Amino acid sequence: MTAGMARRLKRYQPPGTSPGTLPETGVKATLELFTYGPRGTRKASPPSVAAALALPRERGWLRVIGLDTRVVEELGRRLAVHPLVLEDILNPGQRPKAETHASYLFFVVDVPVLLPEGLHEVQVSLLVFSDLVVSVEEESNPFFATVEKRLALGSGRLFQYGPDYLAYALIDTAVDHFFPVLEKLGEQLESLEETLLQQQDHVLPQLHQLRRDLLQLRRSLWPLRDAVSTVLREENPLLSPEVRVFLRDVQDHVLYLLDILESYRETAASLLELYLSAVAQRTNEVMKVLTVIGTIFLPLTFIVGVYGMNFHHMPELAWPWAYPALWGVMVILALGMLYAFRRRGWL
Amino acid sequence: MTAGMARRLKRYQPPGTSPGTLPETGVKATLELFTYGPRGTRKASPPSVAAALALPRERGWLRVIGLDTRVVEELGRRLAVHPLVLEDILNPGQRPKAETHASYLFFVVDVPVLLPEGLHEVQVSLLVFSDLVVSVEEESNPFFATVEKRLALGSGRLFQYGPDYLAYALIDTAVDHFFPVLEKLGEQLESLEETLLQQQDHVLPQLHQLRRDLLQLRRSLWPLRDAVSTVLREENPLLSPEVRVFLRDVQDHVLYLLDILESYRETAASLLELYLSAVAQRTNEVMKVLTVIGTIFLPLTFIVGVYGMNFHHMPELAWPWAYPALWGVMVILALGMLYAFRRRGWL
Amino acid sequence: MTAGMARRLKRYQPPGTSPGTLPETGVKATLELFTYGPRGTRKASPPSVAAALALPRERGWLRVIGLDTRVVEELGRRLAVHPLVLEDILNPGQRPKAETHASYLFFVVDVPVLLPEGLHEVQVSLLVFSDLVVSVEEESNPFFATVEKRLALGSGRLFQYGPDYLAYALIDTAVDHFFPVLEKLGEQLESLEETLLQQQDHVLPQLHQLRRDLLQLRRSLWPLRDAVSTVLREENPLLSPEVRVFLRDVQDHVLYLLDILESYRETAASLLELYLSAVAQRTNEVMKVLTVIGTIFLPLTFIVGVYGMNFHHMPELAWPWAYPALWGVMVILALGMLYAFRRRGWL
Amino acid sequence: MTAGMARRLKRYQPPGTSPGTLPETGVKATLELFTYGPRGTRKASPPSVAAALALPRERGWLRVIGLDTRVVEELGRRLAVHPLVLEDILNPGQRPKAETHASYLFFVVDVPVLLPEGLHEVQVSLLVFSDLVVSVEEESNPFFATVEKRLALGSGRLFQYGPDYLAYALIDTAVDHFFPVLEKLGEQLESLEETLLQQQDHVLPQLHQLRRDLLQLRRSLWPLRDAVSTVLREENPLLSPEVRVFLRDVQDHVLYLLDILESYRETAASLLELYLSAVAQRTNEVMKVLTVIGTIFLPLTFIVGVYGMNFHHMPELAWPWAYPALWGVMVILALGMLYAFRRRGWL
Amino acid sequence: MTAGMARRLKRYQPPGTSPGTLPETGVKATLELFTYGPRGTRKASPPSVAAALALPRERGWLRVIGLDTRVVEELGRRLAVHPLVLEDILNPGQRPKAETHASYLFFVVDVPVLLPEGLHEVQVSLLVFSDLVVSVEEESNPFFATVEKRLALGSGRLFQYGPDYLAYALIDTAVDHFFPVLEKLGEQLESLEETLLQQQDHVLPQLHQLRRDLLQLRRSLWPLRDAVSTVLREENPLLSPEVRVFLRDVQDHVLYLLDILESYRETAASLLELYLSAVAQRTNEVMKVLTVIGTIFLPLTFIVGVYGMNFHHMPELAWPWAYPALWGVMVILALGMLYAFRRRGWL
Repeated sequence: MTAGMARRLKRYQPPGTSPGTLPETGVKATLELFTYGPRGTRKASPPSVAAALALPRERGWLRVIGLDTRVVEELGRRLAVHPLVLEDILNPGQRPKAETHASYLFFVVDVPVLLPEGLHEVQVSLLVFSDLVVSVEEESNPFFATVEKRLALGSGRLFQYGPDYLAYALIDTAVDHFFPVLEKLGEQLESLEETLLQQQDHVLPQLHQLRRDLLQLRRSLWPLRDAVSTVLREENPLLSPEVRVFLRDVQDHVLYLLDILESYRETAASLLELYLSAVAQRTNEVMKVLTVIGTIFLPLTFIVGVYGMNFHHMPELAWPWAYPALWGVMVILALGMLYAFRRRGWL
Repeated sequence: MTAGMARRLKRYQPPGTSPGTLPETGVKATLELFTYGPRGTRKASPPSVAAALALPRERGWLRVIGLDTRVVEELGRRLAVHPLVLEDILNPGQRPKAETHASYLFFVVDVPVLLPEGLHEVQVSLLVFSDLVVSVEEESNPFFATVEKRLALGSGRLFQYGPDYLAYALIDTAVDHFFPVLEKLGEQLESLEETLLQQQDHVLPQLHQLRRDLLQLRRSLWPLRDAVSTVLREENPLLSPEVRVFLRDVQDHVLYLLDILESYRETAASLLELYLSAVAQRTNEVMKVLTVIGTIFLPLTFIVGVYGMNFHHMPELAWPWAYPALWGVMVILALGMLYAFRRRGWL
Repeated sequence: MTAGMARRLKRYQPPGTSPGTLPETGVKATLELFTYGPRGTRKASPPSVAAALALPRERGWLRVIGLDTRVVEELGRRLAVHPLVLEDILNPGQRPKAETHASYLFFVVDVPVLLPEGLHEVQVSLLVFSDLVVSVEEESNPFFATVEKRLALGSGRLFQYGPDYLAYALIDTAVDHFFPVLEKLGEQLESLEETLLQQQDHVLPQLHQLRRDLLQLRRSLWPLRDAVSTVLREENPLLSPEVRVFLRDVQDHVLYLLDILESYRETAASLLELYLSAVAQRTNEVMKVLTVIGTIFLPLTFIVGVYGMNFHHMPELAWPWAYPALWGVMVILALGMLYAFRRRGWL
Repeated sequence: MTAGMARRLKRYQPPGTSPGTLPETGVKATLELFTYGPRGTRKASPPSVAAALALPRERGWLRVIGLDTRVVEELGRRLAVHPLVLEDILNPGQRPKAETHASYLFFVVDVPVLLPEGLHEVQVSLLVFSDLVVSVEEESNPFFATVEKRLALGSGRLFQYGPDYLAYALIDTAVDHFFPVLEKLGEQLESLEETLLQQQDHVLPQLHQLRRDLLQLRRSLWPLRDAVSTVLREENPLLSPEVRVFLRDVQDHVLYLLDILESYRETAASLLELYLSAVAQRTNEVMKVLTVIGTIFLPLTFIVGVYGMNFHHMPELAWPWAYPALWGVMVILALGMLYAFRRRGWL
Repeated sequence: MTAGMARRLKRYQPPGTSPGTLPETGVKATLELFTYGPRGTRKASPPSVAAALALPRERGWLRVIGLDTRVVEELGRRLAVHPLVLEDILNPGQRPKAETHASYLFFVVDVPVLLPEGLHEVQVSLLVFSDLVVSVEEESNPFFATVEKRLALGSGRLFQYGPDYLAYALIDTAVDHFFPVLEKLGEQLESLEETLLQQQDHVLPQLHQLRRDLLQLRRSLWPLRDAVSTVLREENPLLSPEVRVFLRDVQDHVLYLLDILESYRETAASLLELYLSAVAQRTNEVMKVLTVIGTIFLPLTFIVGVYGMNFHHMPELAWPWAYPALWGVMVILALGMLYAFRRRGWL
């Protein structure tokens, strides 16, 4: 698969493969387990899922970093997760979504990273059980460092509410990562706009890249909005009313981001129109200059050409005042043309 | 953060910050308390929230001018306001919204100000309790002077109904501020249109700025519409049926503003198309002039060039009538071309 | 306020004015009262609202022509109309709407008039009571002459049903006025289209004006559609089932008008694109002519220029057949170019 | 009323005319009555509605060809049809619609005909009673010949089900007429596309006409879709469940036609963009040729002009190798230019 | 019917044909029957439908390859399928759809194939009975080879659940075929984008073809989305809750494909705009070169023309320093022009 546009087409399996067949990723995952409760938080690095689930805990956060087929399969077996969910976890490039199953909630969220070579998105899947949150992250990343720190504090809302609050905190963190990305793109838009209003050189490729990044962000945010609304609409004991209030705040953020995004998209489209109009306007000005010059000098050149002819019988050539008279005619002609152009507003 | 487009991206905190953490704004707020009832209105300038809430009152309006972290925090503590609401109050650049909580209603409204350097928006947050309205305003402003005056009168509907009517009066005032702004933009659109139909010089940057202002107004008005509808749909004892009628009138105003706004946006887009078409048309006319001149004089210049050659054997040069005959040919050629151009509609 | 676009921004009062404060219009209204029943119709010109309401009647139509603050205020007081309704009546430029109140229905309708200087709209407000219709018209106009005539007949459906049928008849008449306006605009569109397909001179300003008129009609018709649907959806004893059938017919007309309107708008947009394409095409043709002429004569002029040089040692000048040979070369060159152009499809 | 765009604005009466007033069309209708039942089908040509309704029948289809005011009025009187329905029947150019009345269903359908001068639509109105279908057709046409044939067979589903099935068969036939029209337009689109990709001469007017035809078809099909859905949603004893299944098939066809139509519309829009891009591209190529020629020959012509001057003191003129040296300089200059153009990709 | 656009207009019968009349396709179908159950899977090639249905089976999959009127008719008779369903099966080019009938479910799905000459779609119809799935495929194809293989395994979910799971597996396989097609189109888009940003030669026809393919895919995917939602919304004993979960996964895939598709469509549209802007920009640059050259050399050529005139009385000609002085003037003039161009940013 080439880079760029097609990059986000999720890894897919040959058509007709039995659904729920897990793709072989060849990746080894790192596991981290945070167990937390009134007595504080402990962090462990269990060698396997079995070891992780065997550890005593009140509430836990099992972090799987890397899409490891083996680990996800074991997760599925031990926690009774539907094979289609496991398949979604292992195929990055999913639409963000939220599904309610009998014993767990399933979330897929994208976290955007703005690399120099363009926008990159990391998929994070969350399984929320009544006493455990399992997060499967596409690659190692510093996204959740702040949540870890809040866990390390040993007190706060994370300890007041259940794993649903931890899940909320992770989703909220993921959504928060859209803010600096969008701010960056907004700044790029600003600077493109300034460039364009001044000289408009070479803005087209950047503008195109920017539109593509905005389009990609859009593809992450619209489904996220739907996903969060769906969860909020459904009754589910896994989501306490207190945490619902917080999740509504996430939805508010997503709506806000979408507002900004859509207005950036519109501004980018309007910039292109502006560019096109400005180029047309400049071409018009360039043409005017050529036309003014051509319209003045082509006739004059013809006239002097006439008296450069070598006919034996050209009476004007012998007239004593012919030369200055011709200059007079030519100056009057040129001034007349200039006057006509000024009246048409071309000068 | 640079100015312009990105300006309105609300102040955000590092991703992963615990929700409800109040940002440190470093601003000192001014407090004003209006207590009003059958015995008239008294205005006080309490030094702190505690002092304000301790004052005896029947109904009150506590005005906090400036986003002071300390003051908002104290408000939250003493009036049991949800931390996410406090966070919204302190982060200007929110989407307008309306939330119903158990003991209070929460509104966020933008008030537009058209400064010479572009559109500016001031966020106003309202907390509506059963006997108190708290307004937190982003900066000192003359928006609510008329409401103060109506309070000072000591009678009228403000004294008939509860704080919900006061809240309505404030929202209505905020919405009313969109009218002169939109009128101003409408006038700019008018004048751009006239300029464009006459000479079209340098209209592009203004047109672009205008479209951006309209886009920004749109981002304030659409969510406001949703917010007001949401409040009107929900049953809530904090909002009496009489005041609901008035709030429906606010919604009507917002719909009206949106109608105008959308038609301005469409007109602005159509102006850009008009501009593009006009430039194309002018380029076409400029080209026609150049083409007519070129097509007439290039062949003529060639002909006179021929007889300027210095070959020893050029029989025509010696013919006595050659010179006048050539003039005849050239005039016929030029007239023929002019006739052809006229037939094509180029002259 | 300037003319044109901003013209329709409704007269608004300073932000913060107490809602329901009636604007001082300084207009004197004319009153007409039609009382009708089984014994026929009588027409009176009462000097005041009080006098009008004192006249005995079975069913009545009180026509107020002119937005007279004094008269509307008295109407409000005597018929217990909500102050916000009165405010709407006195501020022309409202969105068309329908409101159901406890003892009356309130309609706002726009009647379009196509003046030579552009589209003009007259606001008509209707208050429908169980035995009376009050119409307040922005200015004197001949719109309702046919309804008056039908009343004068003394029989027909107007006499069978209640005032709701009279209100329907007035709204229907208002909607009917859109037909000739739309037909006129359609004819303009037709003629612009023909002009454009032939010579496209100066169509841009008319096309722009047409698009603006269509945009304005749209702003009258969409809210009207919503208003009529709202009334039809709600249960209300003021509207009998028989009259509902007729009102559904009005809605049908509005939908039909909207269909036509939207297709006109699309045609107008497509005309602009057509214009742009045609101009681009013509510029292309003009350029081809210039290019063909330039490409043939610039090299030839260079060649003859060469032999116009005065070098002492130019052997060709003395050759006896040089002159005719050069003519041969130049003719072959020119023919070769013409052939190349023909092959490229430029001729 | 002029031809073309405005043509489809339905015949309307002066604003304010009493609703249900039947327009005087001045047309004489032809009547045909098909009575059918287990004993086969009989066809009669009754002189009047009264005569038609007096004929004994089990089930009947009364076909009225031509919008005859007299006949429609009598139909209304004898079959108790609402005057607004009669008005709709007599005013062709209605939106397709379906209305359920107490004792009958009312359908309006458009049948498209693609004449050489453009798209034409014929309105067919259907009144469906429990034992009779009345069809009123705008003009004589061969649309329903196949239905007549099926009736003549004396057996089949038409004889199994009631008049609702006959109505369905007529609507189905009307919808089926859109297929060949759309196919024709699709072929035109194809051929335009090929023309455009080859030479693009004179495609603009055809493309414009095509877009207008598609727009008009759209105005027939969208309301038809709504009409059929409305009938299918409502409970009505006049429509048996078996026939509902068939009507759902009609809806399916309409959806299919709309799919095709919308994709044709999009293709037509994209063709115009393609055209614009192709013209811009060609202008660019034409300009390159002119620029290459101009840039080479203008400087060369200047140089040879220099040595055509007649100054007495021009030392170069006497140099023996001046002439060939100048040729060398000129050739190098020309080759250098050509090289520069090739590097820029202009050749 | 010509190739290309109109190709997908489904084979239709003369308007007015009795609905459910099966078209005569003249095709001979191949039949395959898979009977499967706890004892494994057996594959047979029955000569006729009757023979196929007579074979003993627990669960079966009857595969009909080729649209054979005879076979479909017999299917309809023996399995009591509604004639309209049979008609849909035999008319390829249907909108994808799902219908629930009393004793069976009916699905129409398109399978896309990307041939070198463009996108091709194969219609697959499914009839799902309580113990049998009948698939009718437009032409022989390798789509379902993987499902056959899974059947041949003799175990797995296909053997756990009923024929509804088999139907799901077939639909899922069909949907899976959109992935490689969309990936291919995405790669084409990528490569077009690169071409365009470099040299933009001859991208227009490919871009146009790509947009058409995307439009066609859209016409397959949107109705499919509706169809699957419809089936999921309805209660139906033919679809077990377990299989519903899987079908929801199919819907998820379709939504994902639509997301990608729409963003490709938007990218393609934006590429065309980019192309147009780039061409305009290049024309502008070409014009600048011509204008610079023309503006410098046209005046100079005029000047040298002046001194090429043959007037007897031209005093300058005899001045000794005239020639070098003129060179000085001309060089200064040229440099002045170059300076002016540089200041305007043209060089």
